[in-house]
Amino acid sequence: MRALSTEGLLDRFEAGDRTALSRTITLVENRSDGYAEILDKLFTKTGKAYRIGITGPPGAGKSTIVSSLVKTMRSRGVVVGVIAVDPTSPFTGGALLGDRIRMQEIGCDPGVFVRSMATRGSLGGLAEAAGDVADVMDAFGFDAVVTETVGVGQCELDIAQACYTTIVVIVPESGDGVQAMKAGLMEIGDLIVINKSDREGADRIAAEVRTMIEMRRSPEGPEDSIWRPQVLKTIASRGEGIAEVYAAVEEHRRFLSASGRLEQHRRLNVEGTIRSIVESELHRRAWNPESLGRLASLVVEVAEGRKTPRQASGEILAQAGTGPMRERG
Amino acid sequence: MRALSTEGLLDRFEAGDRTALSRTITLVENRSDGYAEILDKLFTKTGKAYRIGITGPPGAGKSTIVSSLVKTMRSRGVVVGVIAVDPTSPFTGGALLGDRIRMQEIGCDPGVFVRSMATRGSLGGLAEAAGDVADVMDAFGFDAVVTETVGVGQCELDIAQACYTTIVVIVPESGDGVQAMKAGLMEIGDLIVINKSDREGADRIAAEVRTMIEMRRSPEGPEDSIWRPQVLKTIASRGEGIAEVYAAVEEHRRFLSASGRLEQHRRLNVEGTIRSIVESELHRRAWNPESLGRLASLVVEVAEGRKTPRQASGEILAQAGTGPMRERG
Repeated sequence: MRALSTEGLLDRFEAGDRTALSRTITLVENRSDGYAEILDKLFTKTGKAYRIGITGPPGAGKSTIVSSLVKTMRSRGVVVGVIAVDPTSPFTGGALLGDRIRMQEIGCDPGVFVRSMATRGSLGGLAEAAGDVADVMDAFGFDAVVTETVGVGQCELDIAQACYTTIVVIVPESGDGVQAMKAGLMEIGDLIVINKSDREGADRIAAEVRTMIEMRRSPEGPEDSIWRPQVLKTIASRGEGIAEVYAAVEEHRRFLSASGRLEQHRRLNVEGTIRSIVESELHRRAWNPESLGRLASLVVEVAEGRKTPRQASGEILAQAGTGPMRERG
Repeated sequence: MRALSTEGLLDRFEAGDRTALSRTITLVENRSDGYAEILDKLFTKTGKAYRIGITGPPGAGKSTIVSSLVKTMRSRGVVVGVIAVDPTSPFTGGALLGDRIRMQEIGCDPGVFVRSMATRGSLGGLAEAAGDVADVMDAFGFDAVVTETVGVGQCELDIAQACYTTIVVIVPESGDGVQAMKAGLMEIGDLIVINKSDREGADRIAAEVRTMIEMRRSPEGPEDSIWRPQVLKTIASRGEGIAEVYAAVEEHRRFLSASGRLEQHRRLNVEGTIRSIVESELHRRAWNPESLGRLASLVVEVAEGRKTPRQASGEILAQAGTGPMRERG
């Protein structure tokens, strides 16, 4: 299993081998030896996949929308990678089996690749890892990467917002719209989808959301540089309204492209990647066997009140950052 | 408002001025100028407050338990700081008003100091900031710091687990126990509290939890080095069972103290503080106006495929980490 070298793996990856894709994602998600080198090699092949993020409260039907949206994209010949970010929250696990079955439905299509990511076990930041996995899928040649964040935390919102088009899904249940509004969800949504819109209150919440969007102070600038979030109604379980959602995604994409925002997104992505390599390299430099040994004795000195934490940190720093950048891989 | 110098603030802090405490916490929570120096100066005064963490699913009654537990502690003369970590999750804001009213009840007592912390607006990691605020309260002279995490994410679990005694609160609702178990909540709980235990199923869930704890493989080592999580039933809204919870906290504290684990906790706290100063200092070194300027042009080069992210990072790193540690404050 471990005999395959990085080069062998990347050769197979470039040949379009899905097993190699899967193993590469695992390497990257787990931050295994050599992952940074792999990401670096793949990076030049990225920038082609359109990135769509989907977020919203539990029970809003995000997975059903993803599944239905992916089918629509497939019918138009789009090859899609799907990342389901499941933070395995301690308290919301109930609906997952159903979600997984829905995902399996689309997962059988050779033009679709579905990958789940969990918080537990992923070292480092989940948002960063999710972005890296999207890069891997992008490099593999998918036309689009759809990232669904199942969770409700800031991290999941960050992931969704890092995508080019962010879809916020809510349901007509009382208060949902207001909650979403208060939480600033409307701020990050390029499209607001009212799912389960055959339920009572769908028209009211859609009107509320539209009003709130209109009431927002208009951004300055020429009209064609402003995107007004679209509000759409769906019944994802029956596929209703999903073609319209995809049409709105495409419209948003054209807007981003024409206004130069797509290029801006791409650059932010590049910047994030460079920053994260710098940070992790600094981390490696600071925490070597020597400094970790010194840390152990400094902890005792500080715990006994003989040094302050800052004096101790100064000693660690004095020996950090002077060595050359160590090669990995 | 801004005229008070750090020295003046700390003088008043040391004199027991609660307004100075409040302002110090704000400085630390917001990572304002000079916060690191303040934390460093206060650190030698820490290590006396006993730290209790409370976590559990939304609606389990954590705030009611905190409120009731604090009253019990007050009746025994314990001076208590309370930190309510509210991640202002987009989707769970409903119960907060009631929680705040309950908190106000105890907040009127001069032997209690309540502070809420939110994710939004706090720069850097919430877990780190919550630990720093606990340090400030510790240095101020509280006998105990109780940290309630309202959220359900990994970060909130980390905060609870960083305390000396962690209380996990669940309710008899069907499936709650199983969910908590699956999520590893049982692993972090030193006490498992079944709240609202007048509801149906309380005995069943208590029995289930006890069985699961017993079924866990016994850790190796002499009997007095092993803590078996206690399972307790409460009806916090009526104060029932809370004295027993506090007695169990005290028992756990004696266990930690006798087994040397308390000292171990303290050292982990010190280690975390040193590490975080080192990391943030490295961050400051790497990202100066010069390197940020260079970053902007490197982003273009990488986006255009003329460099890989790793090559770009190498250039940033080449100029980082060589300068002296800059003084703050």
